[in-house]
Amino acid sequence: MAVWGERLAGVRGVLLDISGVLYDSGEGGGVPIAGSVDAVARLKRSQLKVRFCTNESQKSRGELVALLRRLGFDISEEEVTAPAPATCQILKERGLRPHLLIHDGVRSEFDQIDKSSPNCVVMADAGESFSYQNMNKAFQILMELENPVLISLGKGRYYKETSGLMLDVGAYVKALEYACGIEAEVVGKPSPEFFKSALQALGVEAHQAIMIGDDIVGDIGGAQRCGMRALQVRTGKFRPSDEHHPEVKADGYVDNLAEAVDLLLQHADK
Amino acid sequence: MAVWGERLAGVRGVLLDISGVLYDSGEGGGVPIAGSVDAVARLKRSQLKVRFCTNESQKSRGELVALLRRLGFDISEEEVTAPAPATCQILKERGLRPHLLIHDGVRSEFDQIDKSSPNCVVMADAGESFSYQNMNKAFQILMELENPVLISLGKGRYYKETSGLMLDVGAYVKALEYACGIEAEVVGKPSPEFFKSALQALGVEAHQAIMIGDDIVGDIGGAQRCGMRALQVRTGKFRPSDEHHPEVKADGYVDNLAEAVDLLLQHADK
Repeated sequence: MAVWGERLAGVRGVLLDISGVLYDSGEGGGVPIAGSVDAVARLKRSQLKVRFCTNESQKSRGELVALLRRLGFDISEEEVTAPAPATCQILKERGLRPHLLIHDGVRSEFDQIDKSSPNCVVMADAGESFSYQNMNKAFQILMELENPVLISLGKGRYYKETSGLMLDVGAYVKALEYACGIEAEVVGKPSPEFFKSALQALGVEAHQAIMIGDDIVGDIGGAQRCGMRALQVRTGKFRPSDEHHPEVKADGYVDNLAEAVDLLLQHADK
Repeated sequence: MAVWGERLAGVRGVLLDISGVLYDSGEGGGVPIAGSVDAVARLKRSQLKVRFCTNESQKSRGELVALLRRLGFDISEEEVTAPAPATCQILKERGLRPHLLIHDGVRSEFDQIDKSSPNCVVMADAGESFSYQNMNKAFQILMELENPVLISLGKGRYYKETSGLMLDVGAYVKALEYACGIEAEVVGKPSPEFFKSALQALGVEAHQAIMIGDDIVGDIGGAQRCGMRALQVRTGKFRPSDEHHPEVKADGYVDNLAEAVDLLLQHADK
């Protein structure tokens, strides 16, 4: 297909979303998506540069990588761009002391951060910890601040677990934004800063890079706004209506990561 | 003050918000706001027509009225416009079978409604029942519907309990709207239909009526858009910044319901 040759010409680096592309999370950690373990291995044996770019915020980077290695993936912590470390950097730079509305699994990422007398709220995908009580506590803290600062690790609408679609942090961000009359600062996809830091670590320019993800807005739209190309996989949270999204059109739609890698190995960097 | 004489001239009917105007809810049911029991009694002895117009959706109308009577208020069920009965009417008219994301206290209002094979979600101020699990269940049902319908009893940002500010249903409406990419239908203030039904029950025209509430957007802005006048009380969820709201300006600001009634008895219907 000549069309793929044109679409993928000059690609030298690949950013891979993790959840919904490599695996579906769920009971017992989750399951790899068929063909993805081998697809990552083939990509890494090729001349293409590879980096993982995730909004995962329920687990620390270490725990996420340990889980993926158990599932068979060739991946190390240094290859992953994730929002928690990026958030810690911002907190330190701006002297912010967070109240954390997060999942216990990611709490260790904030061990070195001063959390006394909070002057901001940091929220991530807290899952079951998004209780009314915890949401209300964060709300009350924001309402008592003269200049309320709300930082969110990602703003996803939902993600897919093996048991079905699950509400993501973005829904709860919208709740606090509305209640407090404020706008959150998002660390993670689709923030341009986040994609740029991943590209920098990858060592290629935006026009030489392609994002592969299951989120039409966060992955595809976000990457394209940074000048990258982007493929949407029909796994994870993909829904058929995504191919007719009113605002975002991917550079290509593929059944899964395996098909994306087949195409890349055949056509990229030609 | 001549200015009040002008502002209140021709008022023949009064709509009273309940929470934050008559009482603050909280431990043990709540406490009356100082002077409000007597203020309601004085209003009802006057020539002015009085009706209560509430977005309360944690309690059935019967339970709410019983609580207020225990606190000393002269009030009966027939005098209250509330969103649950209005919602049941809509469900019946449109053949909708709701999945209910509500507080147990209001469940009895929906006893006569068919809830098998839900084809919509009805949400109210569920309080502690806004768990992640319950929110996710409502989300999953909406995502499985071809034409998802979300009906919300009110869309308040927050309300005040004796222990502090509390997240209201509107925050959770925003969460589901964002996650599902839909817009909720709101039954309750500030919906014009809701104010109109209260006015009809009151038996006066909009230009002859005044709303007294603590919510600058839901009470004051909503009533004014219907052609009514509106006073904001400095009790309940009132915050000083409300007096400089970028979009809504009340026809007057008063310390509490007692002051509003003093002014009305002095100047209304002249």
